[in-house]
Amino acid sequence: MSQLPEQVYICECWARDGLQGEDQFIPTEKKIAIINRMVEIGFKRIEATSFAHPKLIKQFADSLEVLQGINRLKDVTFIAIIPNDKALDRLLDACYQGYGVQEITAIISASEDHLLANLERTFAEALPPLADVVKRARQAGLKVIGCIGTAFGCPLAGEVPLKKIIELTHWYLDKGATSIMLGDTTGEANPRQVREVFGKMKEHFPGVNFIAHFHDTRGMGLANTLAALQEGIVYHDSSLGGMGGQPATRRPKYHKGFAGNTCTEDMVVMMAEMGIETGLNIDEVIDTAVMAEEICGRQLFGHVTRSGPIRHRSPRPLSAQDLRSNGEIPPALFLAEKLEEMFSADKLAYRVIEEALKKNWPLSEGLKIQTEGVTVKGGLTGRDILITRFKVLAIEKEGPQALLEVLSQKANGDVFLEGQVELFFPKGD
Amino acid sequence: MSQLPEQVYICECWARDGLQGEDQFIPTEKKIAIINRMVEIGFKRIEATSFAHPKLIKQFADSLEVLQGINRLKDVTFIAIIPNDKALDRLLDACYQGYGVQEITAIISASEDHLLANLERTFAEALPPLADVVKRARQAGLKVIGCIGTAFGCPLAGEVPLKKIIELTHWYLDKGATSIMLGDTTGEANPRQVREVFGKMKEHFPGVNFIAHFHDTRGMGLANTLAALQEGIVYHDSSLGGMGGQPATRRPKYHKGFAGNTCTEDMVVMMAEMGIETGLNIDEVIDTAVMAEEICGRQLFGHVTRSGPIRHRSPRPLSAQDLRSNGEIPPALFLAEKLEEMFSADKLAYRVIEEALKKNWPLSEGLKIQTEGVTVKGGLTGRDILITRFKVLAIEKEGPQALLEVLSQKANGDVFLEGQVELFFPKGD
Repeated sequence: MSQLPEQVYICECWARDGLQGEDQFIPTEKKIAIINRMVEIGFKRIEATSFAHPKLIKQFADSLEVLQGINRLKDVTFIAIIPNDKALDRLLDACYQGYGVQEITAIISASEDHLLANLERTFAEALPPLADVVKRARQAGLKVIGCIGTAFGCPLAGEVPLKKIIELTHWYLDKGATSIMLGDTTGEANPRQVREVFGKMKEHFPGVNFIAHFHDTRGMGLANTLAALQEGIVYHDSSLGGMGGQPATRRPKYHKGFAGNTCTEDMVVMMAEMGIETGLNIDEVIDTAVMAEEICGRQLFGHVTRSGPIRHRSPRPLSAQDLRSNGEIPPALFLAEKLEEMFSADKLAYRVIEEALKKNWPLSEGLKIQTEGVTVKGGLTGRDILITRFKVLAIEKEGPQALLEVLSQKANGDVFLEGQVELFFPKGD
Repeated sequence: MSQLPEQVYICECWARDGLQGEDQFIPTEKKIAIINRMVEIGFKRIEATSFAHPKLIKQFADSLEVLQGINRLKDVTFIAIIPNDKALDRLLDACYQGYGVQEITAIISASEDHLLANLERTFAEALPPLADVVKRARQAGLKVIGCIGTAFGCPLAGEVPLKKIIELTHWYLDKGATSIMLGDTTGEANPRQVREVFGKMKEHFPGVNFIAHFHDTRGMGLANTLAALQEGIVYHDSSLGGMGGQPATRRPKYHKGFAGNTCTEDMVVMMAEMGIETGLNIDEVIDTAVMAEEICGRQLFGHVTRSGPIRHRSPRPLSAQDLRSNGEIPPALFLAEKLEEMFSADKLAYRVIEEALKKNWPLSEGLKIQTEGVTVKGGLTGRDILITRFKVLAIEKEGPQALLEVLSQKANGDVFLEGQVELFFPKGD
């Protein structure tokens, strides 16, 4: 485990790999809005679009409009897939007009069977024009990711020899590629293989930046990500909601089942829990995943979107900002039996809520809790009370006040208290 | 990775942990049928039921009937959860009448907050009766799993100190427990922590068998399983379809989101792909997962149930048994351009199907392919043909004949040939 990186760079692929298999056209302004949100919350690498021909994949008919509409920050790299020289022409035009990308992805499969099924080309047909794309992009000052698809196995051809991956990596580097992506296109990889392949690739190509790109077809996306981390890989691809898969072209399906990318929000939580710096705030990533669900009009595949992140006891005092960024406060158990005296209903509610908040964070000194809106039902005696819900309803944008909704039960299931609580934070919070 | 075990023992927990959160009562005969199927296909450890009070969890009101109905093999260990002394009385009665279990699980939480929420007890209240259960079960000749719940974190209390896990392990071993289960009850574990905790536990307790029991609440079930494997853990818990979670009692929910166990069928595929012996056949495990879906009346959470296992080129010739166990044959690309001569439609169909089958397995010598039922549409020229579907429709139970459905397309999307193919296997297959 000594090889685990301290910091990683996650490339958010929702706007390209995530959407390429989506049948409904996602409106351009929504694509722009979510990419802008990704930029805001700290993603430094964003796959913004594909320059695949609109006749082949309608989803990307608006690739230029998307690139025109998004906000840019100096340290954010936008990436686009460039399948051929005409696509590169279109991109370079956009670059010259000031709304291009800084990096492109060039794609080849390690399996010729897959190459034929996906791009209708043999190696002999595909490589020469791809070489032109890589060289011209480099001449234009763009970085180039050399993507090797089906690097861990092909649903058509079976095993893919490492020799082929090494050969294609040499080929890409020779043409000028600035990094190499190993793509597990249809989720054939397993963690032992991931360690072996990345381990050997790093031996063969010590100075090269490798990108791990896994699909979660068989549920191994995060396990394979862990294996890549253990080999020191710092560049990881993922998609919000675990979306993605084979492009929605008219070509035959070469796989069955779910085929999305490893899920961004689950990946960020795993890495953060492991102490690996992603530069991202989990709650903001989850909010953006919820935004992706709203845009797609359905529940996607993220787990933490449903469960919430893992809550730790924070050493910081509770602040209005904490509430704003969390929204939901995890449940907490309050031991009413520890009370040495009987309180009035109001005072008991106050104590219960105060204790439940303490389970989550140390409270700010001077915090005031207004419990007048809370209804107390049932007897006040009883051993333990579980606060099952604390939800921030409103928070004054600049002010020190929060409105919570609380739903509490005795552990035997009877509703004990419910209603809204106001919190007033001390000055300076 | 040198610590990866060569062989593991998966305990199938569907009939207990899998069902404990299921609101609908699963009929006793269906529970029995699926447990019998688990035995048939090679599971050696099966959590068969819980002796929780039927008033608390209705699902287990039939625990005795289930134990009476299941088939037993000498090398299969059945396990039941025993929450208290009355439950043990009922189990021991069943044991004396010849339909008990060989092993019980005793449960305590590492977090007192969770213990209160789950069992309505403090440590001081819970430990003495639990000690009696462990001791009496051991006196009756049963093995005892000492389960420590919330071992990797508690949704109520936050972090759980390793000291507490060590203390409870000492306590269990002192009372006679024969193995120790670390339960990640609500999916709080991360892979780095799993390696650290199991690593230290194995240092502290070198001779003890540890069981890894993860929930997939945040999608990390398989990543955590990988981490446990890397620490040499050979006992792993899982549930078909990734079912499971907090018992469906009338107590308040202490978590939100999905909370099932790590999924059996996905776990088996990961381990098999990593070359770790599970003693199970993937296709049979997937069939049993489909059975669990049929019983529950809905699609569950397994990935490989949808995608199918990863196909490798088998060195064995294709046999009727291969077809029977696979059902679906993965797609295969056939390069029509390699034909040196033009064939009649029938002969081309024959060659295309023969080549597609070869992509999956070496063919038996003497295999005959009957393609008369196949319709050929479109021109016979063209570069490549993708066989997208081969499905076994019928196979004579004892005989050497298979009926396939084939749907084929040129890679440009035009349907090329479709229909049914009969295969006649040579004698002895």
